[in-house]
Amino acid sequence: MKMICTACKATFEGAQLRCVSCSGPLDVMPLTEGTIRRGDKPGASILERYLDFLPLDRVNTALALGEGNTPLLPSGKLAEVSGIGKLFFKNEAQNPTWSFKDRGTAVGVQYAAAHGYKRIGAVSTGNMAASVAAYGARAGMDTFIFVSDRIDVEKVSPIAIYGPHLFKVAGDYSQLYFETLKIGAENDIFFINSDVPLRVEGSKTIAFEICEQLSFDAPDYVVVPTSAGGNFRGIAKGFMEFHKLGFINKMPHMVCAQAAGCSPIHNAFSQGKSVVERVEHPDTIAHAINNPFPPSGNAVLSILGEYNGVSVSVTDEEMIRAQKMLAEEGLFVQPDSAVTLAATIKLGQDGLMEKDASVVCVLTGSGLKFTKALELHDIKSHNVGIGEVGKYISKQFG
Amino acid sequence: MKMICTACKATFEGAQLRCVSCSGPLDVMPLTEGTIRRGDKPGASILERYLDFLPLDRVNTALALGEGNTPLLPSGKLAEVSGIGKLFFKNEAQNPTWSFKDRGTAVGVQYAAAHGYKRIGAVSTGNMAASVAAYGARAGMDTFIFVSDRIDVEKVSPIAIYGPHLFKVAGDYSQLYFETLKIGAENDIFFINSDVPLRVEGSKTIAFEICEQLSFDAPDYVVVPTSAGGNFRGIAKGFMEFHKLGFINKMPHMVCAQAAGCSPIHNAFSQGKSVVERVEHPDTIAHAINNPFPPSGNAVLSILGEYNGVSVSVTDEEMIRAQKMLAEEGLFVQPDSAVTLAATIKLGQDGLMEKDASVVCVLTGSGLKFTKALELHDIKSHNVGIGEVGKYISKQFG
Repeated sequence: MKMICTACKATFEGAQLRCVSCSGPLDVMPLTEGTIRRGDKPGASILERYLDFLPLDRVNTALALGEGNTPLLPSGKLAEVSGIGKLFFKNEAQNPTWSFKDRGTAVGVQYAAAHGYKRIGAVSTGNMAASVAAYGARAGMDTFIFVSDRIDVEKVSPIAIYGPHLFKVAGDYSQLYFETLKIGAENDIFFINSDVPLRVEGSKTIAFEICEQLSFDAPDYVVVPTSAGGNFRGIAKGFMEFHKLGFINKMPHMVCAQAAGCSPIHNAFSQGKSVVERVEHPDTIAHAINNPFPPSGNAVLSILGEYNGVSVSVTDEEMIRAQKMLAEEGLFVQPDSAVTLAATIKLGQDGLMEKDASVVCVLTGSGLKFTKALELHDIKSHNVGIGEVGKYISKQFG
Repeated sequence: MKMICTACKATFEGAQLRCVSCSGPLDVMPLTEGTIRRGDKPGASILERYLDFLPLDRVNTALALGEGNTPLLPSGKLAEVSGIGKLFFKNEAQNPTWSFKDRGTAVGVQYAAAHGYKRIGAVSTGNMAASVAAYGARAGMDTFIFVSDRIDVEKVSPIAIYGPHLFKVAGDYSQLYFETLKIGAENDIFFINSDVPLRVEGSKTIAFEICEQLSFDAPDYVVVPTSAGGNFRGIAKGFMEFHKLGFINKMPHMVCAQAAGCSPIHNAFSQGKSVVERVEHPDTIAHAINNPFPPSGNAVLSILGEYNGVSVSVTDEEMIRAQKMLAEEGLFVQPDSAVTLAATIKLGQDGLMEKDASVVCVLTGSGLKFTKALELHDIKSHNVGIGEVGKYISKQFG
């Protein structure tokens, strides 16, 4: 496997996690040819379908959990509400652990097993932790999950159930990502953290599926909730690769959507900077994208610059409103995922997105992941005795 | 659409909900020919794939949410633990609202819309309520959801978010299913309750997918968590139809798995009775299968009788142990779904299931649906300061 640094463009052989010269995030060198391997069975792993475009020699199906293969849904009412005529939702909440993270984890675990690793790990208190714990369990590997010691028990339990070695770490949690580069090397633990090259490779498959689902007519905009930057990079890389291979005839504009309470990439991009600065007091309900100093932030900035990208931030209120709008279209997602719709509405209203554009919002995770957000929504109910139900309905709705 | 009563065998035209002569549950008359329509796009609805075998003339994709298409995973370690060599898990937790209910709801909504209904409904406090609320929202229909007034707010919120008309009903909730037969007719509400014929048709697709995923080599046993009986009937009917059409060369033994605290079907079957009796004091943590007087109970009994079926009940302790075992294989499911593994282990140990049999456990819903069950599992963690992590790991795991 050949790697290239997204920052200094140095190249390497083998699965490094960061550039050894400048510590920048690495990309797997894009392949120059390949074919989509269409299968004919329901529920197949997308790793086999896209094997030609992934840094894997083969797929060990015993390690797979049925990742990917998620629907792309054309919007109903929301196309009207948002004013965007061709609006689509890519629903990543139908993955094995109910978030997009499974794609990157699946690729990482395949690679780790093929290269003799018996241990994997991740620094995460949310979707990624659950995903890595699940795939580690599936693979029968020792799995090391590092959460912050301030995490609630409600968030720990759905991770712990998979049986990983669980570490509650006291101190500056944001430092831990960088610590694990060393810890992993010293203890033969293959870390599949937020923006490592193999996780980025997994995220490419979101773009591949969108291309296929739109019959290779690439969308004009793809809106991605952006935290560390790994998923954004992966989706962009997927489109780039299919574009280079001539599968699609244009690159979409990539939209980096962040929460106003923690938007280091949007801050830098809107000020024309090429380097992100740490957000000092991050504060948003969108915990899954609450990364104050994203390790792939600069790499995202350079993709935005190169491909006429857009960045946008939305308030928690806009996000919660969008969460409700999505649910009323049948899609119950995390607040973080709702950022995409809120961003689309904003860009439409500000005239920054054409009304006839085709737009794909990537919904990254299930609403069941963070049910505390439900407390922000009003619940109205009719309270009625069983003997009165028929009469009540005829009167109220007759 | 032609219907046949599962009890008195009377036949009808049109979408009745129960038999007008004897009140028995109805089946859609099986089709005598058809072809699987293989698609080549990821994440497609299975309604189009199996259209020939469903009582629909066409599929309106605007009403679909990407239902079905769930993975069938060969077991890893659990094949050894359970002593069953060819053990598979059908993971229904990857549906749009994270349970199998979406298949039946999807078929019901298609039918309702095609026949001019503007209102749908369901009596449910759990998976079915969320599913019907989501599909109703997607279809832009007025959706009537009837929950018990004793339901916790934590269970209501993930239903209410979709924006249905929500009714909290006081009184004997188990009577409400029968009330809605009348309420629906009087108010033009198409109820897609637990065991109505169209929901049963949706559940058939679980069997269809299993057949395809096993390359049309039918499994020896299919284990289904059984509550009202609609899903059990649907899965059995799917296998029967593919068997009749010659797609598979045998009928699997259907296994009806219930919780010991509420096992009316198992009670009747193990005593050789052909009619279920109401369980007076149901008590199990498996809320999703806690139905003391299943409306399709007798229909399930007759399927068990006709096809050499098996029934089994397991305790809450066995269920929770099985939930943990599944999670340690990468599958975090509801306690109700874990009943299948607990039942399989029991049947294997009792010598009632051959060691070389192929067995499919149907995992009906996500573990995130009922996180209170997590409190029954121990959580162990290593507590460590950020400066000590490297040293700690080298020492403990070096």
